[in-house]
Amino acid sequence: MDVAVIGATGDVGRQICVQLIERRIVPVSSRLQIVARSGGRSAQAAHGLRADLIDAYAEHAPLIDVALEPSDVVADVIVMAAGQTIPAAPGVAVDRRALAASNIELFESYATTLARNGSGHELVVVVSNPVELAVAVFARSLGRHRVIGMGAWLDTLRFRHEIATSLGIRRQAVGGFVAGQHGDDLVPLWSSVRITGQTVDERMVAVRKLRGDRTLDAFGTEIHEAKQVLSELAVTDMHAAFAEIDRWPPDLRAVARPWLTHQSGAKTASGTAGATVDLVDTIFDGREIVVAGQVALDGEVSVGGRPVTGVVGVPAVLGPEGWTRVLLDPLPPDEATRLAHSIDRISQSLAEWGLDR
Amino acid sequence: MDVAVIGATGDVGRQICVQLIERRIVPVSSRLQIVARSGGRSAQAAHGLRADLIDAYAEHAPLIDVALEPSDVVADVIVMAAGQTIPAAPGVAVDRRALAASNIELFESYATTLARNGSGHELVVVVSNPVELAVAVFARSLGRHRVIGMGAWLDTLRFRHEIATSLGIRRQAVGGFVAGQHGDDLVPLWSSVRITGQTVDERMVAVRKLRGDRTLDAFGTEIHEAKQVLSELAVTDMHAAFAEIDRWPPDLRAVARPWLTHQSGAKTASGTAGATVDLVDTIFDGREIVVAGQVALDGEVSVGGRPVTGVVGVPAVLGPEGWTRVLLDPLPPDEATRLAHSIDRISQSLAEWGLDR
Amino acid sequence: MDVAVIGATGDVGRQICVQLIERRIVPVSSRLQIVARSGGRSAQAAHGLRADLIDAYAEHAPLIDVALEPSDVVADVIVMAAGQTIPAAPGVAVDRRALAASNIELFESYATTLARNGSGHELVVVVSNPVELAVAVFARSLGRHRVIGMGAWLDTLRFRHEIATSLGIRRQAVGGFVAGQHGDDLVPLWSSVRITGQTVDERMVAVRKLRGDRTLDAFGTEIHEAKQVLSELAVTDMHAAFAEIDRWPPDLRAVARPWLTHQSGAKTASGTAGATVDLVDTIFDGREIVVAGQVALDGEVSVGGRPVTGVVGVPAVLGPEGWTRVLLDPLPPDEATRLAHSIDRISQSLAEWGLDR
Amino acid sequence: MDVAVIGATGDVGRQICVQLIERRIVPVSSRLQIVARSGGRSAQAAHGLRADLIDAYAEHAPLIDVALEPSDVVADVIVMAAGQTIPAAPGVAVDRRALAASNIELFESYATTLARNGSGHELVVVVSNPVELAVAVFARSLGRHRVIGMGAWLDTLRFRHEIATSLGIRRQAVGGFVAGQHGDDLVPLWSSVRITGQTVDERMVAVRKLRGDRTLDAFGTEIHEAKQVLSELAVTDMHAAFAEIDRWPPDLRAVARPWLTHQSGAKTASGTAGATVDLVDTIFDGREIVVAGQVALDGEVSVGGRPVTGVVGVPAVLGPEGWTRVLLDPLPPDEATRLAHSIDRISQSLAEWGLDR
Repeated sequence: MDVAVIGATGDVGRQICVQLIERRIVPVSSRLQIVARSGGRSAQAAHGLRADLIDAYAEHAPLIDVALEPSDVVADVIVMAAGQTIPAAPGVAVDRRALAASNIELFESYATTLARNGSGHELVVVVSNPVELAVAVFARSLGRHRVIGMGAWLDTLRFRHEIATSLGIRRQAVGGFVAGQHGDDLVPLWSSVRITGQTVDERMVAVRKLRGDRTLDAFGTEIHEAKQVLSELAVTDMHAAFAEIDRWPPDLRAVARPWLTHQSGAKTASGTAGATVDLVDTIFDGREIVVAGQVALDGEVSVGGRPVTGVVGVPAVLGPEGWTRVLLDPLPPDEATRLAHSIDRISQSLAEWGLDR
Repeated sequence: MDVAVIGATGDVGRQICVQLIERRIVPVSSRLQIVARSGGRSAQAAHGLRADLIDAYAEHAPLIDVALEPSDVVADVIVMAAGQTIPAAPGVAVDRRALAASNIELFESYATTLARNGSGHELVVVVSNPVELAVAVFARSLGRHRVIGMGAWLDTLRFRHEIATSLGIRRQAVGGFVAGQHGDDLVPLWSSVRITGQTVDERMVAVRKLRGDRTLDAFGTEIHEAKQVLSELAVTDMHAAFAEIDRWPPDLRAVARPWLTHQSGAKTASGTAGATVDLVDTIFDGREIVVAGQVALDGEVSVGGRPVTGVVGVPAVLGPEGWTRVLLDPLPPDEATRLAHSIDRISQSLAEWGLDR
Repeated sequence: MDVAVIGATGDVGRQICVQLIERRIVPVSSRLQIVARSGGRSAQAAHGLRADLIDAYAEHAPLIDVALEPSDVVADVIVMAAGQTIPAAPGVAVDRRALAASNIELFESYATTLARNGSGHELVVVVSNPVELAVAVFARSLGRHRVIGMGAWLDTLRFRHEIATSLGIRRQAVGGFVAGQHGDDLVPLWSSVRITGQTVDERMVAVRKLRGDRTLDAFGTEIHEAKQVLSELAVTDMHAAFAEIDRWPPDLRAVARPWLTHQSGAKTASGTAGATVDLVDTIFDGREIVVAGQVALDGEVSVGGRPVTGVVGVPAVLGPEGWTRVLLDPLPPDEATRLAHSIDRISQSLAEWGLDR
Repeated sequence: MDVAVIGATGDVGRQICVQLIERRIVPVSSRLQIVARSGGRSAQAAHGLRADLIDAYAEHAPLIDVALEPSDVVADVIVMAAGQTIPAAPGVAVDRRALAASNIELFESYATTLARNGSGHELVVVVSNPVELAVAVFARSLGRHRVIGMGAWLDTLRFRHEIATSLGIRRQAVGGFVAGQHGDDLVPLWSSVRITGQTVDERMVAVRKLRGDRTLDAFGTEIHEAKQVLSELAVTDMHAAFAEIDRWPPDLRAVARPWLTHQSGAKTASGTAGATVDLVDTIFDGREIVVAGQVALDGEVSVGGRPVTGVVGVPAVLGPEGWTRVLLDPLPPDEATRLAHSIDRISQSLAEWGLDR
């Protein structure tokens, strides 16, 4: 199975390539395509990246080639990681709208070319931001089920990790999903948390202890305040800022820690790449696995009594032909309310581009 | 996470232990429990097996201990692989009823002890035969969702493999499930087949070509005739018998090949262990993955208009707290009919033991 | 790189096949050849074994074929695991001479056929016993450097493991070699022991503590007495017999534990296969690695002042073209004396077959 | 076993951390220490890097901590990857002397602190440049056998890869070493090349064909000219520059390709990290493996009739207690001459700092 990584020479793109080869997800006899923009520095670096990857993984590297035009992209799974990114500098606020404006043309160029030239079975895993916008663009061109955004999966993995840390266990022992919009509007579905080695009763006690008496109603405010606290601390003492996070509850940590990592200048390249490669692995695995991802819904589920149409992060079964069923159990009120808000917010953003369903 | 293998010194049990360690599914810091019957040769061999496994895997072996009484079994996942097995000799017919009679006491002894002494969160993966009987016994003691039989998963993996072979691709590129009773009453769900790298249309063409104009209506007869042909060939020329199988369609091969392997005296220990370990891996993986397995239903799905109650092999989501949803799409007539028959047949067998719901 | 396993349907041969595939040492695009004797049950089982291995490892199995005549054996590395074996039953003494008489013809048949039909670059890893005899036979036909016996490597891994256990560390943290004849005449080279994470001084203290004031001068007697103790215990209480071993020093444990495992009826198939597959892995690895193995020397090293000619287990560099240098540092008196005796004993055994030198 | 990476927040250091975790070389229960300089941006990024690595590898990450002072460095293996590096920009010449002047103080600060505070068994793998200078500094403080430079191993892996590419095989099928000074004074030891699956005669024919009638006498000139050709091409057409390299013989490609990769702006972080992590893996592996590395010799081998004293890259056995034997077979004249020159050149560079011998 062949994979193309659009934006391979960026920080995240490069780590995606590394992990795809390290973990042998693209096997020896398949092809990894490094996609960069013709002209400019990324095209130059593409050839060097190819040489460096072969140098590092000569024992089990797949075929690696370089594509510099959208029309040259050929693969079974396409990772979309190109486009402007959120700058990694202390104190810079994220303007998802400006980001949308600078990236939409790029998204459309790849989406339409792929629809025109592709084999008709390519699956697209979206890394670029705003992930909901990119999913909407690609889904319109390729069909809903062939496109998934990895934002909700990254949020999910972080949420599970923070719960695992609180319980002193490993992440693979924790299930549960994060839904909604990638970024501050994410919705940690506490009701979906599952813990290996615990009975239902034990798990409910454990979750209650982790959450305290908080509901998601104040989660937005908590995030806002957390960032203020960290911003002040980070200027003088990064170590103290990270230490502060350790005192917070898991869902808040899942938002605050990557945000501060980004602010520290270290970037979150490995984590982001890890979640992406995980989805590619799931697709190639042949098994159908429940993941969370941004997908374009058409009324499959209802939230707060309203059928959802449009892009949003939800748990869904991902398999060889893309995502299929959405697996969203009835939600408790605070989760339903926050998810409904998140859906509205996405809808408003996409409306500007005529992409709200 | 700890695993106990009941019947570890048998051919299949031993391979299960080997693969659990080889694939590092039981990690270094966890415990693998070798369970044998106190007194007799298996207890002796249990200590030797322990030494041999440590000898082979000193670099990354988990803690390994030996338990000789049901009440000493302690683990997060318990693999039930003990009991009489179908003899591996040419021409011997399988009498599932006699097998049931000789094994039911053993099943009940472990099930009741586990219910009494256990932590309440153990999951049981059943390998022993008749798998439906064992699932029914354990489910009654431990609760339905904590027990899964691996027969349908083994059948599923074989079905996928045979389709993959016909298409010249690898098994992981094929999805789809086998339902029903483990053994000759299995139900290959052709309608559930998915193929990585194919569009829906391409897949439907491919499946039609693989099946020819056959439906499942004649599948029982085909199996019966196939075994007769192979029995005659195998006596004089085992090579020719295996070669004959290669001419048949994938669903028939999925039944005939393991049957002949068993007849050849080679046993099917590695394959059976592989499917079992795969389920254990899925449970520990933290992710919810769609597998097929024998589970005790309570009306979650309907087949042929009737809600199903009782044990049967179906596709289901398997995760840290056991199996949850059954994922059975509406079936075409031939699959529904054969599955309904299979359900009835299981029900009749279990009725003898008062276990038909 | 292709591998042939002669005697693949035996207990050890089967585990060798399993591990070669599990660990992906024979990659997807290479070939694993199952070699059995035409006619008889092993030929039948060969076809079944092939089917079972494909069943278990469909995702990454190499090409697997069956060869039933010596002249059909074609591979880069040939594992010789066929022939009579030492019976696994309590109280049966090992008669290496009788074993030699029953196996030498088989060894010669494969050796001469391989010399006649082979490509000239095949390497042979000998598992069959007596390993020194088989190495002598194959070395005469194929050239000394292309043949290595795995007995000394298995002894080495066990010696390291027992030291590691005493120190509470993992086997990979311990270096050091066992030389001499496989079986009771083995020579644990305490002077070659190295321990990761210890300075030279720390290591010398640790070794002194592990050995006590014993030298190898009494090692033969210790082994003899150990077996008597275990024989008596094993009849009534296998658990107690294994527990008794835990009280002994590492070098004695390295002999006693596998002996008792074999007596317990559990066989040592996994451990033996593990050491064998390790050597195959080393050959394919491209790197030159220091292992211990039975090799046919021609005066490369001297022991006790005499240049050694003939087969004996020693540390040697193993690489793509077979073994090259022997790396034997000057030995302390007790090790030199015991190794000289071991060499004489091998020489006497081989003299009967005209293979001394 | 614990590992410390000094300079972990740099491009190469970060990839070293990633690969150490990805390949599970630092196991779950051990510690990876991220070492950065207190104050400044690298200290900030160190905390972020820690968070990102845990985010990416929560399933099997070791303990990760941050050290900001030389005196806080505690580990079994220390990777020295800090210091100024050669700038990655087209047309910038490498001034190893200036590099030495800017890094020597840093090297000495870590070396003396480690000698004072360390456990006495730490091994140091040097990545920083000039690698020979750093090896000399650390060897003086810690003892010769505990320090190895990875430059010659990286050169070796590249040399093997280029030979493998020419033969259409994988790198692991090729043995052979590169000796001498890291950089343009490297010495490809063609006489040490070994090829899996070839007889000695076949290999000699293959090597002759790969080299043509070139000897190493003109190798310096070839390298000089190659860089000029590439410099000109790279300005206008990077693709053409890489394509040009493909026409050259393997030893020249092994120098030219990484040089151009560096010039392309892609850096050689993955390849450099790969060779480093390979050495750490070798040390932890317990086995003694023949690698090439820069080590401080004391007359163990002679080149061109003169015993070598001082730092130079040679093939040596690397194991748990550091490097032991040097394995240098008698060299053909052109290799001996070039290696002697390389030794002299290193000696001159080190003389400035009083480190020759």
